[in-house]
Amino acid sequence: MQALETVSQNLSHGGVQGVYKHHSAAVGTDMVFSVFVPAHAQGAKMPVVWYLSGLTCTHANVTEKGEFRALCAELGLIFVAPDTSPRGGGVADDADAAYDFGLGAGFYVDATQAPFAANYKMWSYVTQELPDLVGQNFPADMDRQSIMGHSMGGHGALTAGLTFPDRYKAVSAFSPIVAPSQVPWGQKALTGYLGDDILTWRKHDAIALIEDGARVADILVDQGDADNFLAEQLKPQLLVEACEEAGIPLTLRLQPGYDHSYYFISSFMADHLQWHAERLQHRIK
Amino acid sequence: MQALETVSQNLSHGGVQGVYKHHSAAVGTDMVFSVFVPAHAQGAKMPVVWYLSGLTCTHANVTEKGEFRALCAELGLIFVAPDTSPRGGGVADDADAAYDFGLGAGFYVDATQAPFAANYKMWSYVTQELPDLVGQNFPADMDRQSIMGHSMGGHGALTAGLTFPDRYKAVSAFSPIVAPSQVPWGQKALTGYLGDDILTWRKHDAIALIEDGARVADILVDQGDADNFLAEQLKPQLLVEACEEAGIPLTLRLQPGYDHSYYFISSFMADHLQWHAERLQHRIK
Repeated sequence: MQALETVSQNLSHGGVQGVYKHHSAAVGTDMVFSVFVPAHAQGAKMPVVWYLSGLTCTHANVTEKGEFRALCAELGLIFVAPDTSPRGGGVADDADAAYDFGLGAGFYVDATQAPFAANYKMWSYVTQELPDLVGQNFPADMDRQSIMGHSMGGHGALTAGLTFPDRYKAVSAFSPIVAPSQVPWGQKALTGYLGDDILTWRKHDAIALIEDGARVADILVDQGDADNFLAEQLKPQLLVEACEEAGIPLTLRLQPGYDHSYYFISSFMADHLQWHAERLQHRIK
Repeated sequence: MQALETVSQNLSHGGVQGVYKHHSAAVGTDMVFSVFVPAHAQGAKMPVVWYLSGLTCTHANVTEKGEFRALCAELGLIFVAPDTSPRGGGVADDADAAYDFGLGAGFYVDATQAPFAANYKMWSYVTQELPDLVGQNFPADMDRQSIMGHSMGGHGALTAGLTFPDRYKAVSAFSPIVAPSQVPWGQKALTGYLGDDILTWRKHDAIALIEDGARVADILVDQGDADNFLAEQLKPQLLVEACEEAGIPLTLRLQPGYDHSYYFISSFMADHLQWHAERLQHRIK
């Protein structure tokens, strides 16, 4: 069992909101993540909802502002929030310390390009190492996982969900970057982490994955129509078209007046958790 | 109508979470506060719940972590969160910049002692100036107000509620300082703001107010039993005894395992809002 350091634990909504630190073999640094575990009978295992965060965030943003605990407690869902990049001494950052690349902007890929290849292995971290760690250390039923995310984390949730459709029983996103290959945030990140060969990008672009045959049972997306990033970076219409073409049932809800913030996310968090719970339900023991 | 600057407005849970700034005549500086206004029909007025924050906090803590919006939206309650002290150039602070006196620690009194008397008029600000401003600028039914708070803000809510029992239709608190005259936090603050004459403290001590004849219809208090400040600073038993003596129905819930944080507050926020709504209800139009 890998060593896990408890940073903090607070009782909340009858469960335990924890923050934990561990040395990650995948990224080569210490990593911090949060886990909410509802009250449960000794030995009982609960399904796990993964939440991937957006640019500039750590585990803390959704942990503090996500308003997920009340319903996770009611539905019996473990909620895990990883960080968005490796951090700490020696980890490369964007040359200009921009918010959209490097620290806080790992884009959920395994970098192949120097100097980022040394630590930016967020794909392996989030889809492999951290699930193993969670399975070992929490009352988590790893046969019942689902995944959601926001913005860059919506991109991560969609690509992880499309890549492992058997593992993640539900996939949803808040204002996701649906086509990183086609928008400035994604082009900068994928070039920096994966290089110029755009064929290598296709595994990390939800639209390209769908074009290349990836399928999931269905997808829920909420998107504010007052989101400053909607037209240039998010382009949900591309996901609508790809899902139509592929026959993937997509529920895309354009939410009038909502922006890109946690005020938006928290407004629809309960809907997403219900969506996840329904799809995890058939295996709830 | 007093001038109000909009710092930010975000749509959330169908309503508007705003942050506003204004020049306060009471404290002599600019002050920032937050207001959540649920969706409502044009011209409709809603009851107002006041939330007074604890030491070190600004409006932002409860605004981000309080988990009040979903239920305020459902119940049609405006939720107002003021700052905890004057701030800005020239405002006096604790000599050692301690967290429990001066900035972020106004204790909801009108200071009479130099140098604090110049700006620390938080009692007038919170019970007079800001209500006037809210009544003028928001769809607020000022005949239906209620008040709650946390820790130092629980003290503020209890003393305001006891002082103006006709104005505040409900009074509740999370881990309140019930007897500032009898505990270190309160003794430091009341001495610093009001001076050594402890008779002047009695208007700002819930226990003393009750002893001196103040009455409210009932009080709800939630208190974590794993709260680090419970034994030395909070002493809820003193409120139990004073309420018993005075015949004030007190619902004090000792919550096992809960601490002093917003993880605790957010767990029971819905119960408090329901309590307030029931007591505001009979006048809901």
